[in-house]
Amino acid sequence: MRDEILSMGKRARAAAHHMAKAGSRTKDKVLECVADMLLQERDTIQSSNDKDIEQAEARGLSRAKLDRLHLSDKVLAEMAGGLKEVALQPDPIGEITRMWTRPNGLRVGKMRIPLGVVGIIYESRPNVTVDAAALCIKAGNAVILRGGSEAFHSNQCLARILMKALGQAGLPEEAVQVVGTTDRDAVLDMLKLEEYIDVMIPRGGEELIRFVAEHARMPVLKHYKGVCHVYIDEHVDMEMAHKICMNAKVQRPGVCNAMETLLVHENVAARFLPVMGEAFRLAGVELRGCDRSRELVPHCLPASEEDWYAEYLDLILAVRVVRTMEEAIDHITTYGSQHTEAIVTENYARAQQFLQEVQSSLVLVNASTRFNDGYQLGLGAEIGISTSRLHAFGPMGVEELTTTKFIALGNGQLRI
Amino acid sequence: MRDEILSMGKRARAAAHHMAKAGSRTKDKVLECVADMLLQERDTIQSSNDKDIEQAEARGLSRAKLDRLHLSDKVLAEMAGGLKEVALQPDPIGEITRMWTRPNGLRVGKMRIPLGVVGIIYESRPNVTVDAAALCIKAGNAVILRGGSEAFHSNQCLARILMKALGQAGLPEEAVQVVGTTDRDAVLDMLKLEEYIDVMIPRGGEELIRFVAEHARMPVLKHYKGVCHVYIDEHVDMEMAHKICMNAKVQRPGVCNAMETLLVHENVAARFLPVMGEAFRLAGVELRGCDRSRELVPHCLPASEEDWYAEYLDLILAVRVVRTMEEAIDHITTYGSQHTEAIVTENYARAQQFLQEVQSSLVLVNASTRFNDGYQLGLGAEIGISTSRLHAFGPMGVEELTTTKFIALGNGQLRI
Repeated sequence: MRDEILSMGKRARAAAHHMAKAGSRTKDKVLECVADMLLQERDTIQSSNDKDIEQAEARGLSRAKLDRLHLSDKVLAEMAGGLKEVALQPDPIGEITRMWTRPNGLRVGKMRIPLGVVGIIYESRPNVTVDAAALCIKAGNAVILRGGSEAFHSNQCLARILMKALGQAGLPEEAVQVVGTTDRDAVLDMLKLEEYIDVMIPRGGEELIRFVAEHARMPVLKHYKGVCHVYIDEHVDMEMAHKICMNAKVQRPGVCNAMETLLVHENVAARFLPVMGEAFRLAGVELRGCDRSRELVPHCLPASEEDWYAEYLDLILAVRVVRTMEEAIDHITTYGSQHTEAIVTENYARAQQFLQEVQSSLVLVNASTRFNDGYQLGLGAEIGISTSRLHAFGPMGVEELTTTKFIALGNGQLRI
Repeated sequence: MRDEILSMGKRARAAAHHMAKAGSRTKDKVLECVADMLLQERDTIQSSNDKDIEQAEARGLSRAKLDRLHLSDKVLAEMAGGLKEVALQPDPIGEITRMWTRPNGLRVGKMRIPLGVVGIIYESRPNVTVDAAALCIKAGNAVILRGGSEAFHSNQCLARILMKALGQAGLPEEAVQVVGTTDRDAVLDMLKLEEYIDVMIPRGGEELIRFVAEHARMPVLKHYKGVCHVYIDEHVDMEMAHKICMNAKVQRPGVCNAMETLLVHENVAARFLPVMGEAFRLAGVELRGCDRSRELVPHCLPASEEDWYAEYLDLILAVRVVRTMEEAIDHITTYGSQHTEAIVTENYARAQQFLQEVQSSLVLVNASTRFNDGYQLGLGAEIGISTSRLHAFGPMGVEELTTTKFIALGNGQLRI
C-alpha cells in the first residue's frame, strides 16, 4: 500500500466528519462558488485541458474519446449550470424520514445522514470530476476521485478549484481529493481502503467495472449493461407503440437505456411488425429476429442465441414474437440485465402484472425506455445508474449518497 | 468452485423469481405451517439436535456454546412464536414508497421489491436457520444458509421442515437451502457466487465477519463490534442518569449494545461519579478511568489507550471526564464503533446537537443503549445489526431485506 493513497484515505475520513456537520447554506455556497470559478478561470482550465488533448492526439485517441475529453466553453457552461441546479435542491441531511412511538413511550425515528467517504473511479470525461464532487458535497460526504489518465491535467486543475472553494467557505479542502498518479496500482490501493472509503462507484466500461467489483473490499455501486426490452401487448394503441419503439431505439442508440430487444404479442404481430419493420429499415436499423418475425419482416436477419443477450449500443435491434405476456416476462428474466423494461398496453390488468413482476431498476407502462435517467425521472443530477439491488437500484441522485441512522427520544426508558 | 455450491446458487436464483411473485397469504401460510411443524415434529428435531450435542460434548465445547446449540422445548416454542409474529407483520413487497409527477405527465414512483437471493453464514445457534429463513421468505427472497459445523444435524433437520412447508404452499422448496457440507472451502465457494447471491450477511464472531468481508464478491451487511458510549451532560437529572448507566452496563453486559465507555461532563463529575462508582462497585463492575475519574472514585483502575477502544462484553467499564460535549463527541468519533451512543441531558440544544452530530446507527436521548435491537425499536424480528452504512445502518428487519425499483406510468411519453 502506497503511503500517499493511505494518507488520502485518512484525510478524507477526517474531512467527512466536518462535512457531516456543514450547514446547507455553506454547502450550497461552495457549489455556487465553483460554478462562478469555472467561468472566471476558464483560460487556466482550458490550457490544462489543452495539454491533455495534445497528449491524447499524440497517442492517437479516437475522435469520440477526444470529444469526451474536451472542456469547451459549452461544456464548462453546462457544468456551471449543473452546479447551480444542485445548489437549489433541498438538503437531504437531517431529514427525519419516519418516526413512531413504542409502547414504553420511546419515540423512534430514522434521520438521514451522509454516507461518509465516497470513492469514484472513472474514465475519460473530466466533467465527472465536478459533477460527482458536487453531489458528494451536497450530501455532506468527502470524496476521493480517480479519473482517467487521459484527463490528468484537467482533473488536477478542476480539483484545485473545488478545494479552493471549499477552503473559502470554511470547509476542509480535503473533502475533495483527486488521486495525483495515473498508474493502475493506485486504483488497487484505493480498493483496499475499506476503513476509509465507505462506498466505491466505478463509472466507465464493463472492464473497469468488473475490475473494481472484483478487487474492492468496500461495497460497490455498479452498473454493468442495459439490455432494455419493450413488450408490445395485444391490447395496444398501434400509433403509441410505434412512437415509443422508434424513440426507444433511434433517439440515441449508443446509451444504456436504449431498447435492444423488441417483444411482440403474437396476436398483434402481423399488424404491427411489417409497418414497424419498414419504419426501422428507413431509420437504418438492422433487425435480427426469431422465425416468426422474419416471416413478417422481409429484411429481418436471423437472430442467434447471443442476440438475446446483446447490448448493441448501435442501430441494431433483436425482435421476437411471443405467445403470451408471461413468455415476454420469462424472456426478460432470462436474457435481461435488470436495467429498463417497458410494456405498451391499453389493458389495466396486464399493465399491473408487468409492473409487479418485472424486476428491473425501472419498469415503464406506455413510455420510452429512454427515461431511465436521474434528470428525466426528477432526481436532479445523477451520479450513475445502479443495476445491483443493494442500497440503490436505478438512477442515483443526492439521496442515494446518504443513509439513515436510527434516533430515539426518551425520558428515562430502560430495557427490562 | 464445487459444482454443488454453484448449482445451489442457480436453484436459488430460479426460486427467487417465484418467491418475488408469491402472494402475502401464501408466504404467511408457510411461516405458520413451519411454526406448527416445529412443535409437531419436536421429537425428530430434538433427536437430530442430540447428535450435534453429543459430538460437541465429545469435542469438549464450552458450556456456553452447548447452551447456544441446544433446541430445548422452550427454544422451539420461542422459534414458533417468532414465526407467527413475522407472519402477522405487513407484507413489505409491492408498497409504493413515493410517487410524483413529471412536467411531461409521466407519473414516477418507487415500489418495494425483494432483494433476490440472500446468503447467511452463521455460527453455532441452529435457531438462526429458522429465524433468518422466515424473514427472507416474508420479504419474498430465496436464501442460502451455511450454519456452523457444530449444528450440522439440527440445521439439516430444520431445513427439511422449511422446504416441506414451502412445497405444501406451492412455493419452490429451493427458496430455502442449507449448505450440506461443513468444510470451510464451501464458504469460499459461496462468497464467489456474486451472480447468484445478491447480499451476504455473516453472523458470528469478528474473525468470521472479517473473513467474509475480505473474500465476498457480493455486498456484505456486517456488524463488527459495539463500543457503546453514554455521555452524562452537565444539565442532568441525576436519578435518570444513574438508572440509565446501570441498565446500559449491567442488565446484560455480554451483548453488543451494552455500554462500554461512560463520558461525564466535568461540571457534574464530582456529584455524579462517586455515587455512580459506588453503585457499580456493588454491582461487581470494574472501572478503568482517566486521572480525574480516579480522583473521584477510589477503586477506579487506570485506563490505558486500549481501554477506550475496548468492547469488554463483561462487567468492566471505561470512564472519562470531559470538559465539553464537543470533547465527548470527539472521543466517540475517535474510539467508537458507530453502533449505539446515548446522551443524558435536560438541555434542549445539547440533545439536538448530539442527535445531529453523532453518526452512529442508533443515537438516543435519555434512554438506555440496550434499546438497539430490532424488537425493541419496533421492527419486529431482526436479522442482525449493520454498522456499515450502505443499504442498512442499525438493526435490520424485513424491510432491510428488500429494495425499491422505479416505476413510471405514462400515456405515450417520449424523450425529446
